[in-house]
Order: sequence, then C-alpha cells, then structure tokens
Amino acid sequence: MLLTMRDDENVGRITLAQVAQQAGVSISTVSKVLNGRQDVAAPTRVKVERLLETHSYRRTTRSAREAPLIELVFHELESIWAMELIRGVENVAKLHGAGVVLTESGTRHSPSPEWIEGVLQRRPLGVVLVFSALPVEFKQQLRSRSIPFVIIDPAGDPEPDVPSVGSANWSGGLAATRHLIELGHRRIGIITGPDDMICSLARLDGYRSAMSMAGLEASSDLVLYGDFHVEGGYDRTMELLALPDPPTAIFAGSDLQALGVLEAARVSGLRVPHDLSVVGFDDVPIARWSSPALTTVHQPLRQMAEEAVQMLLRLRDDVPMTTRMELATSLVVRNSTAAPRD
Amino acid sequence: MLLTMRDDENVGRITLAQVAQQAGVSISTVSKVLNGRQDVAAPTRVKVERLLETHSYRRTTRSAREAPLIELVFHELESIWAMELIRGVENVAKLHGAGVVLTESGTRHSPSPEWIEGVLQRRPLGVVLVFSALPVEFKQQLRSRSIPFVIIDPAGDPEPDVPSVGSANWSGGLAATRHLIELGHRRIGIITGPDDMICSLARLDGYRSAMSMAGLEASSDLVLYGDFHVEGGYDRTMELLALPDPPTAIFAGSDLQALGVLEAARVSGLRVPHDLSVVGFDDVPIARWSSPALTTVHQPLRQMAEEAVQMLLRLRDDVPMTTRMELATSLVVRNSTAAPRD
Repeated sequence: MLLTMRDDENVGRITLAQVAQQAGVSISTVSKVLNGRQDVAAPTRVKVERLLETHSYRRTTRSAREAPLIELVFHELESIWAMELIRGVENVAKLHGAGVVLTESGTRHSPSPEWIEGVLQRRPLGVVLVFSALPVEFKQQLRSRSIPFVIIDPAGDPEPDVPSVGSANWSGGLAATRHLIELGHRRIGIITGPDDMICSLARLDGYRSAMSMAGLEASSDLVLYGDFHVEGGYDRTMELLALPDPPTAIFAGSDLQALGVLEAARVSGLRVPHDLSVVGFDDVPIARWSSPALTTVHQPLRQMAEEAVQMLLRLRDDVPMTTRMELATSLVVRNSTAAPRD
Repeated sequence: MLLTMRDDENVGRITLAQVAQQAGVSISTVSKVLNGRQDVAAPTRVKVERLLETHSYRRTTRSAREAPLIELVFHELESIWAMELIRGVENVAKLHGAGVVLTESGTRHSPSPEWIEGVLQRRPLGVVLVFSALPVEFKQQLRSRSIPFVIIDPAGDPEPDVPSVGSANWSGGLAATRHLIELGHRRIGIITGPDDMICSLARLDGYRSAMSMAGLEASSDLVLYGDFHVEGGYDRTMELLALPDPPTAIFAGSDLQALGVLEAARVSGLRVPHDLSVVGFDDVPIARWSSPALTTVHQPLRQMAEEAVQMLLRLRDDVPMTTRMELATSLVVRNSTAAPRD
C-alpha cells in the first residue's frame, strides 16, 4: 500500500503500525487521519491525533523524487500587499527548489477544513500564513506532523505562541509625523486605521509621541479612525477640511487612505503638497504612481515574506532562533509633502 | 519501488516496463525521464521521450489521496495584472479542490529546466501560463504525459498550436476612441504600447477605425508608441502637449500609461478632465483609485483566468471545444473624461 510504504520510511520513531495497534484501529484509518480526511469518526480521530502528538510522530517529507512545496495562505488576496508578499515567498522558495501553493482562506478569518486536509495531503515543507489566525485544532494537526508554520502579520497582532514576522508600526508613525513637523507643519491631522487593529494604535501612538516631543498638541479633533481603504481616507479628510482650523498636513495611516486624501483635496480645490501635505503608510507600488507621488512609510513586505520562509526552514531543521521578529520601516520622501504655505 | 507501483496502475496502455524494454534501459531510467530529471544521458532521454509520445503514455493522475494541483506560471509577477489572474485561477481551482502552485519564470521568456522538472514531478492537473511561451521540448514533455496547458495572453499573440484565452483589444481601442469622439473631441492623441506587441497594434487599429468612421484625421503627430509603463505615458504626453496644436484628449493604451498622463497633466498645470480627457486600458484596481478616477477599457482578467482553468479541465477530459478564445472588453466611464472646453 502506497501510503504505508512511505510512512514506514519513518524509522527510529513510532511507526504507523504501532500507532494503529495502540489506538486499536487499522493502519488505513491512521493513514486517513494523517491525511486529514474527514471520513473518520471524531472519537477515533481524536484518539489517533493524541497518539501522534504524544509520540511526536514525524512524517517523512515528500520523497526526494517529488518537488517540495511551501504553502502560502492569504486571508484576502484582494489585498494590495499580496503581490509583494508572494514575491518574497517565491524568492526564497525558488532558492530551495520548492514550489509555492497559494490559498485564499476567503472571508472567514481562518482557513477551512478542506484547506487543512489539502495541506496534510500535500505534506509541505511548511506553511506561511498572512494575517490568518489558525484554529487550535489545525495548529495541533500541523505540530503533530512536524509541519512548521509562521505568520506574516504587518498589522502587528500575532498570537503569542505562533512564530511571526511583523514590522515596526510605532516607529513608522513617529517618522511620518516627524517629517511633517520638520517641514514646519503645526496642525497635523492623522487618519489611522480601525480602532480594533493593533497596527492602527501603534501608528497613532508614534504620531502622538512625535507631536508631544515637538511640544505640539495632538488635539482630539485632529485624530480620526479610518478603514484603511480609499473611501475612509476620503471621508475623514472631508471632516478634517471642514474643521474651523483645518490641518495643513495629514498622516494618512495607509497608502490607500492617502489616495482618498488626494482625491478629497482635488475635489476641494486644494493642491498637494502646496495647500496640503500628505504622508501614506505601506509604500505599495501605487504610492509611486499617484499624482503627486506619495511620501510614505515603507513596509519591507518582500523582506518580511523572505524572513518568514527562512524562519520556516530553520524551524524545520530545529535551528534555535527568535521566532518573533519586527523588521524596520523607513520613510520614503516623494512629492506629496512640502513646507506649509505662508 | 514507489514510482513503479504508481506507474503500473497505468493499465490498458503501454507500461513503464514495456517502455524500458523497448528502449533497452532500466525501469528506473524510464522513471527518471518521466520525472524530468536531468541526470539521464541526452540520447537515452530522447529515445524514451519518443516511445512515450508514440504510445501516448498517459501517466496516472496523482492518487485520490493526494490533493490535485494546478500550475500557474507568470513571466513576471510584478505585473499589475497578476493579482486578478491569480484570483481567477484560485476561484476555479477551489471549486475542484485543487491547490494552485505559483511560479515566476523570471526575466527569460520561457520557464527554466528546473521548472519543467518540478512540474513533471508534481504531476498537476494542468498548466496555465501567463504570456510565457513554451519551448517545443517542454510542450512535448507535457503532451507525452497528457498534462494539458493553456496560455492566458492579454497581449493577444499566442502561438497557433497552443490553447489560449485572450481579450478583444481592437474593440477596446474602438470603444475608448468612440467615447472621446462622442464627448466632442476632435484632436485625440493615442499612446499605444510597444510597436512589437500585437495588442498595441490592435488597440491602435481600433483607434484609427473609430477616427476614420467619424471622418476625423488620425494625423501621425498624434500617434505615439509607449512602453505600457507610467514613464512612457508621462514622456509621450509631454511630447503631445508640446505640439503646436496639442490634443484635447489622450487614449493612453494602458492604465499605467494613463497614470503617467495624469502626472504630466498635473505638472503642466492642466486639470483632468476639464483641460484634458484621459482614457486608460485594463481597468486594474488603481484605475478606480487615481485622482480623478480613470475612464478605462475593462479587460476581464479574472474571467480570462477562470476560462483558462475550465479549458484546462475540459482538455484533460478530452471534451471537444474551441481552444482559442477572446473575451469581450468593455468601457468603464469614470471621472477622467469630459467634453472639451469652449
């Protein structure tokens, strides 16, 4: 039998036959559980999973004849970040001769049972997740089969027990705001992201610290929460411009929100940067192509993805290391910022 | 032996053992060739490949226990189209429970030998290529193993013997130009793509036909070739605006070029659409987000990718069908076009 032959290569640790014996089931049932198949009664599956975990059953990797795979899972491929992250994963995977399997987990916040079934069957070198949280059950299934996983989380709120790569949001917020202050701006508005995202709060705190260090007031009418989308940037800017004393500069919290600021300025007859300075966050490709090109905080998305795969491969080889990493952000000055008028 | 067992499932046609016998080599050598391994002497490989092809050896698909895969190959992931195409392939793959393996072929115009080796080892349901041409040898290797392949070619120049999905470039150029004519423009410039790309020529011919049908002159100073990038759009617009009698509208040939037109208009102090109307081509996401939002010709990229995968699966099942398809483009009117002044 095909699977048994492969799994029996797993010498030195517990074998499938031993697991089957201890669980009082057939080898084929153990195989089914190993492959994440759904057609096994729940109590049986739980029993077998426990045995696999207890004995840290390590499944052999795909045979050398087969091309190795790395799984990359997006919550939402629509994201403007997706392409940079895919490229980063591809870069490192290619170096190791591995193919990249791409999955979109869809609107749910975690991948589906069909997904984990596919992964267990494909036996990848490891799994890179973007944003997605993993249900406890999936984590156990991956761990018991020694398939490592790493989360790329530019939003900065990974679960504590999961290896992760993020970026320095607070420092980014600080750098963006300092840049505006150095240009001479005093009334600086911020449109940060949703108030339930850690990265929104970190960027806002960076803004507050920069203002405070410069002896400037971050009055509450200047602090708004957006949605990280173009529409939020547009709507919040309209609110800021309607203030009795509107800001001369806006830190937009994301590039998409910054595009919304540009559009709001255009329809309000304001020229950027002459009448209004704008700073984005992310440095996705469109930041270069907008009119004017956006000054923004660069998130090293590609490097984050590269680090995530490197971390995966080191985890696989049991190399000791830090499994929580934040890469530095950096300010990229283009044409959307200038000194305030008068 | 693992491979032999699998390949012997291939009853009713020629078996590995028979191929080995006829070629006068070992079964393991035949296995190596089947798996695209490079460590087989060239004459031996040729001999075995020929036998496989002659007897239309059909390798069994991956066993039902293993998750099926679809290969998606990009010439360049950087492309702004990539994400829409990936989503289309994912949509259909998910319906069939297949994982999607993503490869970037790099700067070369066709995938590398490592790539074909990986594909032959992974035994996918089929291969979707974006733009990439396939060397004759790779085509033979895929055909002799009954792995179907389809090219998605928005540029409209697929090889004649390869199943392909494209889009209607000529009609798109016609629709873009007609829209400007209907708004009242008479001097309409075009910045089409490189002169060695079929889609550039098709869009230009659509423009010429629309001009001619309206009794307008497409004078040669109004017809320029760009690079499909922002820079080309910017540079060519500067040339058009420097004409003694500059155009009141520009058909930009691609959305990226249209962004370059917007930037050139901005630095020249022209308001879009009040002083200059602009039409793009592609309708990538940034077309919605630019200031002003772009009027553009929608290429149904996601549907093209979906059709490509459907075509692949029908090819696999030997369902008779047209293997060359162009999907319709459509004009999307946003805020970058208006009647000319005066």
